[in-house]
Amino acid sequence: MSLISFASDNHSGVAPAILQAMIEANKGYAASYEQDPWSQKLKDLIQKEFQAFDSALVFNGTAANVICLQMALESYHAALCAETSHLNLDECGAPEKIAGVKLVPVPALQGKIDIAKIPDCLIRNGDQHHSQIKMISITQPTEYGTLYSMDEIAELRKICDQHQLYLHMDGARLSNAAASLRVSLAELTQHVDLLSFGGTKKGLMLGEMVILRNPELNKKLKFFRKQSLQLPSKTRFLAAGFLAYMENGLCSEMAQHENQMAQYLRESLSVFPEIVFTHDTQANSVFCQMPRAWIKVLRKKFFFYVWDEKTFELRLMMSFCTNTHEIDAFIEEIKNIRN
Amino acid sequence: MSLISFASDNHSGVAPAILQAMIEANKGYAASYEQDPWSQKLKDLIQKEFQAFDSALVFNGTAANVICLQMALESYHAALCAETSHLNLDECGAPEKIAGVKLVPVPALQGKIDIAKIPDCLIRNGDQHHSQIKMISITQPTEYGTLYSMDEIAELRKICDQHQLYLHMDGARLSNAAASLRVSLAELTQHVDLLSFGGTKKGLMLGEMVILRNPELNKKLKFFRKQSLQLPSKTRFLAAGFLAYMENGLCSEMAQHENQMAQYLRESLSVFPEIVFTHDTQANSVFCQMPRAWIKVLRKKFFFYVWDEKTFELRLMMSFCTNTHEIDAFIEEIKNIRN
Amino acid sequence: MSLISFASDNHSGVAPAILQAMIEANKGYAASYEQDPWSQKLKDLIQKEFQAFDSALVFNGTAANVICLQMALESYHAALCAETSHLNLDECGAPEKIAGVKLVPVPALQGKIDIAKIPDCLIRNGDQHHSQIKMISITQPTEYGTLYSMDEIAELRKICDQHQLYLHMDGARLSNAAASLRVSLAELTQHVDLLSFGGTKKGLMLGEMVILRNPELNKKLKFFRKQSLQLPSKTRFLAAGFLAYMENGLCSEMAQHENQMAQYLRESLSVFPEIVFTHDTQANSVFCQMPRAWIKVLRKKFFFYVWDEKTFELRLMMSFCTNTHEIDAFIEEIKNIRN
Amino acid sequence: MSLISFASDNHSGVAPAILQAMIEANKGYAASYEQDPWSQKLKDLIQKEFQAFDSALVFNGTAANVICLQMALESYHAALCAETSHLNLDECGAPEKIAGVKLVPVPALQGKIDIAKIPDCLIRNGDQHHSQIKMISITQPTEYGTLYSMDEIAELRKICDQHQLYLHMDGARLSNAAASLRVSLAELTQHVDLLSFGGTKKGLMLGEMVILRNPELNKKLKFFRKQSLQLPSKTRFLAAGFLAYMENGLCSEMAQHENQMAQYLRESLSVFPEIVFTHDTQANSVFCQMPRAWIKVLRKKFFFYVWDEKTFELRLMMSFCTNTHEIDAFIEEIKNIRN
Repeated sequence: MSLISFASDNHSGVAPAILQAMIEANKGYAASYEQDPWSQKLKDLIQKEFQAFDSALVFNGTAANVICLQMALESYHAALCAETSHLNLDECGAPEKIAGVKLVPVPALQGKIDIAKIPDCLIRNGDQHHSQIKMISITQPTEYGTLYSMDEIAELRKICDQHQLYLHMDGARLSNAAASLRVSLAELTQHVDLLSFGGTKKGLMLGEMVILRNPELNKKLKFFRKQSLQLPSKTRFLAAGFLAYMENGLCSEMAQHENQMAQYLRESLSVFPEIVFTHDTQANSVFCQMPRAWIKVLRKKFFFYVWDEKTFELRLMMSFCTNTHEIDAFIEEIKNIRN
Repeated sequence: MSLISFASDNHSGVAPAILQAMIEANKGYAASYEQDPWSQKLKDLIQKEFQAFDSALVFNGTAANVICLQMALESYHAALCAETSHLNLDECGAPEKIAGVKLVPVPALQGKIDIAKIPDCLIRNGDQHHSQIKMISITQPTEYGTLYSMDEIAELRKICDQHQLYLHMDGARLSNAAASLRVSLAELTQHVDLLSFGGTKKGLMLGEMVILRNPELNKKLKFFRKQSLQLPSKTRFLAAGFLAYMENGLCSEMAQHENQMAQYLRESLSVFPEIVFTHDTQANSVFCQMPRAWIKVLRKKFFFYVWDEKTFELRLMMSFCTNTHEIDAFIEEIKNIRN
Repeated sequence: MSLISFASDNHSGVAPAILQAMIEANKGYAASYEQDPWSQKLKDLIQKEFQAFDSALVFNGTAANVICLQMALESYHAALCAETSHLNLDECGAPEKIAGVKLVPVPALQGKIDIAKIPDCLIRNGDQHHSQIKMISITQPTEYGTLYSMDEIAELRKICDQHQLYLHMDGARLSNAAASLRVSLAELTQHVDLLSFGGTKKGLMLGEMVILRNPELNKKLKFFRKQSLQLPSKTRFLAAGFLAYMENGLCSEMAQHENQMAQYLRESLSVFPEIVFTHDTQANSVFCQMPRAWIKVLRKKFFFYVWDEKTFELRLMMSFCTNTHEIDAFIEEIKNIRN
Repeated sequence: MSLISFASDNHSGVAPAILQAMIEANKGYAASYEQDPWSQKLKDLIQKEFQAFDSALVFNGTAANVICLQMALESYHAALCAETSHLNLDECGAPEKIAGVKLVPVPALQGKIDIAKIPDCLIRNGDQHHSQIKMISITQPTEYGTLYSMDEIAELRKICDQHQLYLHMDGARLSNAAASLRVSLAELTQHVDLLSFGGTKKGLMLGEMVILRNPELNKKLKFFRKQSLQLPSKTRFLAAGFLAYMENGLCSEMAQHENQMAQYLRESLSVFPEIVFTHDTQANSVFCQMPRAWIKVLRKKFFFYVWDEKTFELRLMMSFCTNTHEIDAFIEEIKNIRN
């Protein structure tokens, strides 16, 4: 029997309604390479939902990010991103290798770009010796489960307009941000030029989308996708899964549940004075420090990551299938350890 | 209702046993990034089956090929491949962009590299102005459904040994070649240094494998996979599907069926004097020319590709779910057209 | 004492007037990175001469070609070029590695693209699986010393217009073509969108220019140059040399001399019945076959390349300093061998 | 008349002895692509001087650095470098684009990597999601004219050995470091695996060298050079210049002079209480702040860079031709301004 996992929302399987839709798509022949009806329907839905002018299904989040970089940047450009961002730390150099661009890490506050530090990064635009900053990339929610407020996004948009930069949003868990901020996906992304919209971590088997909103980004998306090794053939299954996720409010419903579980976990943990919360809990994760000895015991029954090996900061991530019984069991175990 | 498709073996869905295995994998939590039990089991099975020392699941065939190139070549190297190969014609420049290498097309006979033309391609090895040939890449079965014989593969191996080249096999439909040549996958690939082993076209939902046999190819596969945008997170589903394909002889059984359907179709078509077969039928496809007027009518009920718009050569591809009823219906339609 | 060399026009040193200009530039301080007066003057001169809207000094011809590819193409694009072109055969994969594009070799006649073969190469434009042809690159004069006529260039331009392709001219020896066709550099390049204009082989110490004529090619040249490792610092010397080459008709005068030397050599060789000319002599080189035994003896006193090791085809290249005495001595030696 | 320039040592021309050697090399024919006698002699000299097993002439420092990265790293590797390094700030993204690697900036002290910060950067080696640190690159002297001591270099070597990293030295002004530390070039580089050795800023017209010391770095240098657009053809001139620089102690002699001029300038400036020195003066540059109003006046007669637009920090760089008269004139001008 597998352990209860708070390690990542990709340790969960596929949400039942999504799997069911994939099973139902397994009938007869269907054209490949997004020429099937499911993919066409998904494309229409996404473009309407996000007021986008083009979009493409891809396999994973790294790919969505790297294709966004290629769509918006020349190789001599650079993107600003939080020093703690997935783009900077967790893509094994794919942005540099495949998009050929430089990433310029900006100091982060609560996982978010410190906006006050941006102007200094732009000083050398125009100087041929220096990579030219042409994009700000933000993760929403951030890698620490925090959120850029709607005002902060508007402020970033203003900076982008002043300096002719593109604004990219890495939305591997975008639905959690929308649910927390009580805005629609459209409202949440109204200021961005292009985004990576995640499915895998949100209950799909796999699948992410590159979504283009700024019509200036009119390079040919389909060719960059194919060349970037991201053209699926039996697209009906990815599309059917994504459609089930987007339709009937499932996306929003699951995100609300995940966020609530994070709040429930945080409240449950807050009774223990030994536990120190290291970040705000605004989406579906809780970051905290606890005594090192506890961790060893807890990991016998629960799977989770020590996010910072030096400070023993934990990341506890809630997924669509996380429930209060699992959280209660976790709390119970802590109580046992303390006694 | 969708048309019967002979267009590609990726127009079929997922083989029932494979889908069932994926559904069964959807229980509880499982570690991501190939740390789940299914992925571990698959890796062991593949490495044993192919006498490989390392392997990795990836999303699609283009990716498997491009990662193989990266594992074996420096950017100043080049690979010889048939001018008609998928690698040369159908990867949208991914080998050049991502592996950074040059592909040198060699004239093809029946879809296969004309072996006699190889020595001329090697003359400038050593000359710093020229890309250095370091690999021969063959597709087995070829893009025209033909096969390299075991003797031809042995001959290519000898050339590779003489000139210190790697031998790569693009095996998107490898099982069809093994079934046709009546050899095991291990025997079929005994002379190759590394291969792309296909699942998607053979009844999986998606998934291909990079398989390394020559232990000199000891660059770190996992990093190239991640950087090449090919690290799946919920690997249990891809692995469960691949396991179901590899276990209990399903792989071989489906390949035999597909090959038989191709023979059945060819025999059925051969009664029509207007039809000219343009390639041998050694695997699961039939290539032929037929009167242009027929094609228009046939495509109302059947989906298939005109492979060469100038000669009206058709490709008719058999998949795991192709059956004699479908073929008979196709033949019946031709008879109707002729009358 | 070094041998007389007919091997390449880069075996010659620097033309005296050019070296003198470089020596004179060595006075006092001068701003680097093209901010010096020589570089500014050269840029103005080049842009006027070629009706160009931008240009840049680079170190060598491979670089000029690769930067042209980057200025005009996305990585999923491809360029058509003669199968015998320097771009295809002699850049060690730099176009693929650095511009990330695919080169599609077209069969060549007398070193020139067989124009009749172009339409077939364009069939798959629009198909996402295939690199998209977006450029035709021609070498003028070709690697075999032959020339595209003004009519042929106009025909290529028409094809480019019909299919929205860019026309690139690799002009490592452009002056020889202009002199032979009795047109100005401006006339010779009137139909091209961008070109590589060579200096090194024409009597400079080093230096080539990327010249942009089509104002649609408005990516930022200076950044691509810097990123492509081509930004010289003490540009005054390269620019002073190039200026001396361009001013006072030296460029044209030297080209005429070189072409005349090639005609003189060809005429002188034509008296020997054993010698077979393998290409027309339209610029500054002579290609011919001669008995293998002669070659061995001749190479004791003269340095030249066997261009094709299988047919013993020689390339004899005339440079700015080649003179009739050297050619006469070569002919004399042949006479000695024959006796 | 051009201004006296303290802006960069590439604002100076060519040292007389070096230019003379280049002029003398302009006799008769010489083989190209390093097959000439000058290049062969230089290669031998460099390999002996640096106990190197291979080396290559290239055009500029960016290229030398990028080729070093390619020789030592796979694309999924990363190099640690000072956040203030040329590699990180002044290559317009060439390392990322062309070597495909990530650069990880490390906080700097006096322009040097803060060694205490290195261990934290290595924590994720082994984790497939993260670029793998495989190199430490240091600039000697640094971009701020400071020096790693011999002890610090030995300490970095120890860290490299512990973690199987390569040590690279960017030595665009290496001779200044050797002169200041009173060690030979061999001693100075004894702990490095590979280095970029600069000529352009040290009195050559142009030319830098990639020097390989660790025999494990046995990828084929010549192919990476050619593919990286760095193969000069008339190598005799670059080599003749470099030979003149290396022979007869000119390299060391000029470096000592430059360093002395920097000391002389610093001492001369130190009498003004308004001037604040921002870095130690260990090589051939002086960094200082002075009243903003002074700068405007001084720049009418002297050319120099404001290194930091916010703090009005100046960089004053001494070159081989800087003399005490020029410095005295600069001091005199300051005195005039103050009065």
